[in-house]
Amino acid sequence: MSVGDVSKRILLGRKLRSSQLGETLLPKRIALPVFASDALSSVAYAPDEVFIMLSLAGASAYVWSWKVALAVAVVMAAVIASYRQTVHAYPSGGGDYEVAKVNLGERAGATVASALLVDYVLTVAVSISAGAQYAASALPTLSGHEPIFACALVVLLMAMNLRGIRESGGFFAVPTYAFMVAIGTMVVWGAWQWWTGDLQAAESADITITPATGFEEPLTTIGLLFLLARAFSSGAAALTGVEAISNGVPAFRRPKSRNAATTLALLGGIAITMMITVILLAREVGVRLVDPDEFDRLSRGGQPLPADYDQHTVISQIAESVFHGFPPGFYFTVTVTGIILVLAANTAFNGFPVLGSILAQDGLAPRALGSRGDRLAYSNGIVFLAAMAIVLILAFDAEPTRLIQLYIVGVFVSFNLSQLGMIRHWTRGLLTEQDPGERRRMVRSRVINTVGLFFTAVVLVIVLITKFLAGAWITILAMGTFYVLMRAIRKHYEMVSDELAADEEDRVMPTRVHAIVLVSKLHKPTLRALAFAQATRPNTLEGVYVATDAGATSLLMKEWDERHLDVPLKVLHSPYRELVRPIVEYATEIRRANPRGVVAVYIPEYVVGRWWEQLLHNQTALRLKGRLLFTPGVMVTSVPYQLQSSQIARDRVRRDEFRVRPGDLRSGRVDPRSKKGRRR
Amino acid sequence: MSVGDVSKRILLGRKLRSSQLGETLLPKRIALPVFASDALSSVAYAPDEVFIMLSLAGASAYVWSWKVALAVAVVMAAVIASYRQTVHAYPSGGGDYEVAKVNLGERAGATVASALLVDYVLTVAVSISAGAQYAASALPTLSGHEPIFACALVVLLMAMNLRGIRESGGFFAVPTYAFMVAIGTMVVWGAWQWWTGDLQAAESADITITPATGFEEPLTTIGLLFLLARAFSSGAAALTGVEAISNGVPAFRRPKSRNAATTLALLGGIAITMMITVILLAREVGVRLVDPDEFDRLSRGGQPLPADYDQHTVISQIAESVFHGFPPGFYFTVTVTGIILVLAANTAFNGFPVLGSILAQDGLAPRALGSRGDRLAYSNGIVFLAAMAIVLILAFDAEPTRLIQLYIVGVFVSFNLSQLGMIRHWTRGLLTEQDPGERRRMVRSRVINTVGLFFTAVVLVIVLITKFLAGAWITILAMGTFYVLMRAIRKHYEMVSDELAADEEDRVMPTRVHAIVLVSKLHKPTLRALAFAQATRPNTLEGVYVATDAGATSLLMKEWDERHLDVPLKVLHSPYRELVRPIVEYATEIRRANPRGVVAVYIPEYVVGRWWEQLLHNQTALRLKGRLLFTPGVMVTSVPYQLQSSQIARDRVRRDEFRVRPGDLRSGRVDPRSKKGRRR
Repeated sequence: MSVGDVSKRILLGRKLRSSQLGETLLPKRIALPVFASDALSSVAYAPDEVFIMLSLAGASAYVWSWKVALAVAVVMAAVIASYRQTVHAYPSGGGDYEVAKVNLGERAGATVASALLVDYVLTVAVSISAGAQYAASALPTLSGHEPIFACALVVLLMAMNLRGIRESGGFFAVPTYAFMVAIGTMVVWGAWQWWTGDLQAAESADITITPATGFEEPLTTIGLLFLLARAFSSGAAALTGVEAISNGVPAFRRPKSRNAATTLALLGGIAITMMITVILLAREVGVRLVDPDEFDRLSRGGQPLPADYDQHTVISQIAESVFHGFPPGFYFTVTVTGIILVLAANTAFNGFPVLGSILAQDGLAPRALGSRGDRLAYSNGIVFLAAMAIVLILAFDAEPTRLIQLYIVGVFVSFNLSQLGMIRHWTRGLLTEQDPGERRRMVRSRVINTVGLFFTAVVLVIVLITKFLAGAWITILAMGTFYVLMRAIRKHYEMVSDELAADEEDRVMPTRVHAIVLVSKLHKPTLRALAFAQATRPNTLEGVYVATDAGATSLLMKEWDERHLDVPLKVLHSPYRELVRPIVEYATEIRRANPRGVVAVYIPEYVVGRWWEQLLHNQTALRLKGRLLFTPGVMVTSVPYQLQSSQIARDRVRRDEFRVRPGDLRSGRVDPRSKKGRRR
Repeated sequence: MSVGDVSKRILLGRKLRSSQLGETLLPKRIALPVFASDALSSVAYAPDEVFIMLSLAGASAYVWSWKVALAVAVVMAAVIASYRQTVHAYPSGGGDYEVAKVNLGERAGATVASALLVDYVLTVAVSISAGAQYAASALPTLSGHEPIFACALVVLLMAMNLRGIRESGGFFAVPTYAFMVAIGTMVVWGAWQWWTGDLQAAESADITITPATGFEEPLTTIGLLFLLARAFSSGAAALTGVEAISNGVPAFRRPKSRNAATTLALLGGIAITMMITVILLAREVGVRLVDPDEFDRLSRGGQPLPADYDQHTVISQIAESVFHGFPPGFYFTVTVTGIILVLAANTAFNGFPVLGSILAQDGLAPRALGSRGDRLAYSNGIVFLAAMAIVLILAFDAEPTRLIQLYIVGVFVSFNLSQLGMIRHWTRGLLTEQDPGERRRMVRSRVINTVGLFFTAVVLVIVLITKFLAGAWITILAMGTFYVLMRAIRKHYEMVSDELAADEEDRVMPTRVHAIVLVSKLHKPTLRALAFAQATRPNTLEGVYVATDAGATSLLMKEWDERHLDVPLKVLHSPYRELVRPIVEYATEIRRANPRGVVAVYIPEYVVGRWWEQLLHNQTALRLKGRLLFTPGVMVTSVPYQLQSSQIARDRVRRDEFRVRPGDLRSGRVDPRSKKGRRR
């Protein structure tokens, strides 16, 4: 097979893979669950936060709950409309980061990237903590052990993603649709019961909530506004995750942008409906919730509640009321809610490496993150994500209420910069665009993004005011750290790039090649290295042996002569049994003697397969290579000799290459339905 | 400078170093403290163990103490006499391991090596635990926190040895002689006080010891014998460390063997005198000691002692009595005793790597341990030693009494095999030796070693019987593990060596060299790699670029053309942004097209200096090299380009090379008095 054939084969291989890419693209009915689990799962905790905040002024403040819900819905609608513009304008899947970078510059891009990194960690922490609450409401024995259970879940997710679990449409579709069905059934049936007057009161309906200090009746206007602002900003947690589709446009079927925009609208409609109906129904069944740290404000019939009172989530309480007398309904609802929360956490494990690889391409993260197949880089990212999430879960006792305080800032920072970027994008487009129809569309899009910016800016201000001391400062600190780190990495890469930039005189041919082959014994690897070195026809070629033992040295010299190798053997004496230093010094001396020549050091290496074998072999070669790299004018050639056991490692590497990596699905890399993408 | 000059320079360098070697050799007055600290320090705990064992039958059994001491002294004298034969017969410093290996075969050698490895760990654990006891008797606040304090000491020793502390004669001489002076003064002054009747009773003299269950009066003959056997085998702990000189013969001044033998005799005399006089004096002042776990057997004036009774060591108690009214005397004695114990532990840190390097040369340990300068191997050994010692200290609560049960087995296993080996050595020598004077000496030596074997065999049997269940089984288990491990390593090396053995057809010259230079950008490192590759005049030379991005690819191709590199550029397409696989596949295809040729892959690498820079660079090169090594017929050449920051790493490596390594002093590597050995 000629080299031409070889390259054709490689190109053909490429074409084959490109055509397979089509098969992996997602139809809307599969894309919706893949990208919606994060956004929809917030219905499982956002309503709770609204009620908890309102309860500061006692249960009477719950009259405001549906108005707060409406405000959140309006903002969500505006944000969804904005992102529909984004998926049209940036179909490459870069999402908020790309929008901010392209339109507002690198600093804005790095800011959004920091916010997104922090968000991934918090998505895991919040979703898993909320999931643990649901698990505890279904399995009372778990109650009180939520932090440990949540950490175990994170570790399980981490292990699954390290192992390389295949994300597939079905993996998401079944639980996500089941969640929609469960909430839908619950709401419809509940509405029917309410209509017929059969709606049972919630388990907590007879609880009295004493207002917190400073929120006693009658509230001042400022007090009320502040209360509503806090409830609203907590409810804004419902918006987290809606941006996911803008990162996944490449995974959609054609026409990509249109399908993505439609899916976004669908997602928005479902999320808003769910949130509002759940909040309305919660009010009707009389759910009572307070901050888990303030159970002392609760009483039932004048008696304070016991210290170990187990407060259930809004959806659990509604499900218990609605499905009263039909336990399977309750268990189904709570189970699928728990599952969708875990699924939402899993999306963070998949999104994180994708973001990492985009950042690596832009030089904001270590470059190794940018190439697929660097298992180590992937693994480090996954472990980092899991570790940070566990720290947060333990620090905040797996209480979603406390974690939410950290969560929303990051989301809204990226919302804001992204909207601002989009406005800039349209303004710039209008400068050059002539077609009146196109101009009209652009102006309309700009209006939508401006409205979006207005709302998200208001929310960001409210969130900063109401949540800064409650935990948002931690997020801002973490974002700042990531930002500084990314800028430093970027700067370092630029500095190196400047130092490496080629100029005109940079291509001086070495005048001569002095090759030395390191000899430890006269075995197959050494003979192969000698043959390979000879094949390159250097100007000088010699074997080099470091003598630490007189007997072994004379034995080797005898054997060398007997074999008639017609290569001279140089013996370096090393009284202290050092191996590396004499060679490095010898190479340096040769180079010094002939500064325009190059020294080629050939190291025979034998390749073994098992990790413990690697500890027993080649340690000196490894150290020597490391040292020689620092010696100017030297190049180091490894001549491998594959031992039989190396087959083990070869097989392992091959298995590893075909293993699924987190983020594969959303970059369209693996066919979610067949194994074709993996076959060769 | 020509190559001839270079080699002369290297040879001169060697001569210089050889002549320096003389300066580092130790005179007897320095060698004694260097090698004696381990043996002498056992005077700080062996007498205690004798009293503790005897106290099983109550304080009345203390009448046997000096007879037990005498028995130990006899065995010690026999062992010292035996080792004087060893240092004459094996002046190379291999010690027990070499004697057993040469005379009894590899299995015996591996057994002795296992025993020595275990002994090093126990030397650290026992010495440091005893040292912590002394510290507690001087500083009462430490009392009860001995395990933590002992662990801290081990960590400190570990850190010092990792850092590379210089062992020097002075380092040992001052505290060792101070210890001799302290014990000597104490004994002489105590004897004077006893003579004049002024000797004060020990703090514990008025304590009554209830005999332990099974040891109540009157003792049966068997019971008494068993009691004495236990006391004797515990007292045999005094023998640990006497073998050290046989490992250090190369460090002595000439005539090495004779000086070593004289030093051994001196050491034996001092150790025996110290032990016997301390035991006699302890009886006179009325020291009362029991196992720290059995304080409930103690009472004073009919009242049981409080639970937090603080039992002081024999030397502390004697010092307190003798130096009554002169606290500096007490504090000096206790302090130097503590210091010499820490010094004894430190010798284990120095002996361990020396043994490791001998084992590595014989293929019983990873080969990397054999070459000096492998800092990683040294560090791993030191950390391993410290970790095992800490585990033992914590498991046995830093109580020397309990650790001693584990200690003595290993020591006596190697004593026995070494004596047996020596007998075999003389017997073999007598087969060929003709000179009557020489024969007479040999026969005499064989008698001495036979007597030594007799005594050490008796002790080993006693130790096994009396201590097996008390902890010796742990030692035997650990020895077994080391033994199996060493045999497995040995077997593996042999297997590999067989697979690698060269036969006649092994030197087929490749017919052609197909060189490919990996290109990521057209910067200085790439240009250098191209130039170096061109200098080797391969049959085919091409640049290879993995295209993951269309824009970057066309930019590179344009730049490539502009530079008129007259090397063709091959573009490999990689739709999934993989970098490693396309290159490996391409190399494989080339090789398949020409199975008798060789593929030379040139990888431009830039060398940076800081650890975090290394995380940011060359990760792909590293992974690629790892993968290509498994591909037959491929050789991998790294062409380094040194960035400015690489100077940092170069300096670090250089500093590291000149750093002192544990074990340097006893292999005669570093001048203990001047810095000459470090200068170049």
